Amino acid sequence: MATTPLRIAVVSYGNIGRAAIEAVQAASDMALAGVVRRRASAGQPLPPELTGIPVVDDVAKLGHVDVALLCGPTRSIPDTAPRYLRQGIHTVDSFDIHGAKLWELRQSLDAIGKQHASVAVVSAGWDPGSDSVMRTLLLALAPRGLTYTNFGPGMSMGHSVCAKSKPGVKDALSMTIPVGTGVHRRMVYVELEPGANFAAVEQAIKTDEYFAHDDTRVFAVPSIDALKDMGHGVLMQRKGVSGATHNQLFEFRMTINNPALTAQIMVSCARAAALRLQPGAYTMPEIPPLDLLPGSREDLIKALV
Amino acid sequence: MATTPLRIAVVSYGNIGRAAIEAVQAASDMALAGVVRRRASAGQPLPPELTGIPVVDDVAKLGHVDVALLCGPTRSIPDTAPRYLRQGIHTVDSFDIHGAKLWELRQSLDAIGKQHASVAVVSAGWDPGSDSVMRTLLLALAPRGLTYTNFGPGMSMGHSVCAKSKPGVKDALSMTIPVGTGVHRRMVYVELEPGANFAAVEQAIKTDEYFAHDDTRVFAVPSIDALKDMGHGVLMQRKGVSGATHNQLFEFRMTINNPALTAQIMVSCARAAALRLQPGAYTMPEIPPLDLLPGSREDLIKALV
Repeated sequence: MATTPLRIAVVSYGNIGRAAIEAVQAASDMALAGVVRRRASAGQPLPPELTGIPVVDDVAKLGHVDVALLCGPTRSIPDTAPRYLRQGIHTVDSFDIHGAKLWELRQSLDAIGKQHASVAVVSAGWDPGSDSVMRTLLLALAPRGLTYTNFGPGMSMGHSVCAKSKPGVKDALSMTIPVGTGVHRRMVYVELEPGANFAAVEQAIKTDEYFAHDDTRVFAVPSIDALKDMGHGVLMQRKGVSGATHNQLFEFRMTINNPALTAQIMVSCARAAALRLQPGAYTMPEIPPLDLLPGSREDLIKALV
Repeated sequence: MATTPLRIAVVSYGNIGRAAIEAVQAASDMALAGVVRRRASAGQPLPPELTGIPVVDDVAKLGHVDVALLCGPTRSIPDTAPRYLRQGIHTVDSFDIHGAKLWELRQSLDAIGKQHASVAVVSAGWDPGSDSVMRTLLLALAPRGLTYTNFGPGMSMGHSVCAKSKPGVKDALSMTIPVGTGVHRRMVYVELEPGANFAAVEQAIKTDEYFAHDDTRVFAVPSIDALKDMGHGVLMQRKGVSGATHNQLFEFRMTINNPALTAQIMVSCARAAALRLQPGAYTMPEIPPLDLLPGSREDLIKALV
């Protein structure tokens, strides 16, 4: 363990950035170097909770930084991460597109990290992230069988943004409701512009590629703000075969505050990036879980294993 | 990935050894080299299910072996593992004593492994083992709070052996019953010797150090064999704090065949030992979960993360 605290920068200040500051401040082995925000130089007043925290438009103004927590939107990560990695600053992001794009990001950051002696932890959230670790572990425990990941109830950011983009919609909230075996219903709440036609809005949402494959229900409400809640949940189930023995049953469930959990996972991964991992890029199932925790290996193994 | 299958030896043939053979045979990237059994040379008839499988009293008789799965009793591991590691054969055991003894075993095998270019995976079962990975992960997700591990219903081998050791007991079975918050009741079934005094047996069991701290109930039954079932279960619960956000709730539950799961985990860990890990000793939370699975990193990350 480092005896000097790890210096952490939070890059971008939204829901996850705010929760990341709290998680860094709660970690006894870390210190908040400051917040990097594009608008920091624009002379806008800061949110009151940032009082006393250095807010800059360039990480170089924060002095030495060990890890940058990239809390901006997923689409910004492929451009943002290399800028830090090339300065020898480790990065942690919660890039949330599964599959080929995630693999491409990992590969490109892996090459940059190895060249500049820095570590990138990619997709460090809860899904992708800790759920990916669970899926991996369950496959090791019962190699044949089916895993279902059921999400919610909770707000889907991507689906909410899509619904909000339709003509006549002032604001929208799409809730993901699990109906079992990885199937989800979309409950979409819309706050209409004055004079908008609800039937047309409903039709536009239901026929969008984002919603067309799911059971989607649309409701007009007077205020979206009144409905917002950052709770979310997961129920992961696996029924499978260990060796030649069938009907091995596993279930993982969580009910959590979404940005708080995402930010906490990013902070735990920052520790692995700074103290344990060799240069390159990693997804969470590629990281020894013990490397996420502070403390001596001996104490942790005696207490947890 | 190796294109030649990994050659695996199963050392000791009891419940776990039998399940280990099945798990090796079910793994497409492994081949069963054979079974090492002290009694192999004694000329006893083999169990019919071992027909066609090489059974020897010395691993050297099996040709090249990559990994030895040590399926003997926990107390035999500290003596057995070094014999294999010193020959450059990786080992996987399911040593099941938590705390200082587990750490000491890991440390001693770590030194031997590093000296002989071999890998030892220590305590590769479900608890210690995959439950340890879960406890570690949950602590990374919510660093403050409480985790409760509730076991059962299922047979406790250690408690059954203790009950069986009492005068007047012909056979015994101790079931672990979860009563919540990590507290367990012991339901002990005893088959008495002819003429044994039940009250004396009950008293001897209840006052043994193994049982004295738990709510223990003792019952006389005509046959222990009629009660034996290798099913077991776990319910792990954590309620904790991510960053500054309280009441994050997590639950992991499984209902499984005990030796089948233990053996499958050992087999998955054998893969990490042979293909991924540097020489030395590891407990499961020290191993990247992805290293437990067969297949290319790219395919796994695209499918699981």
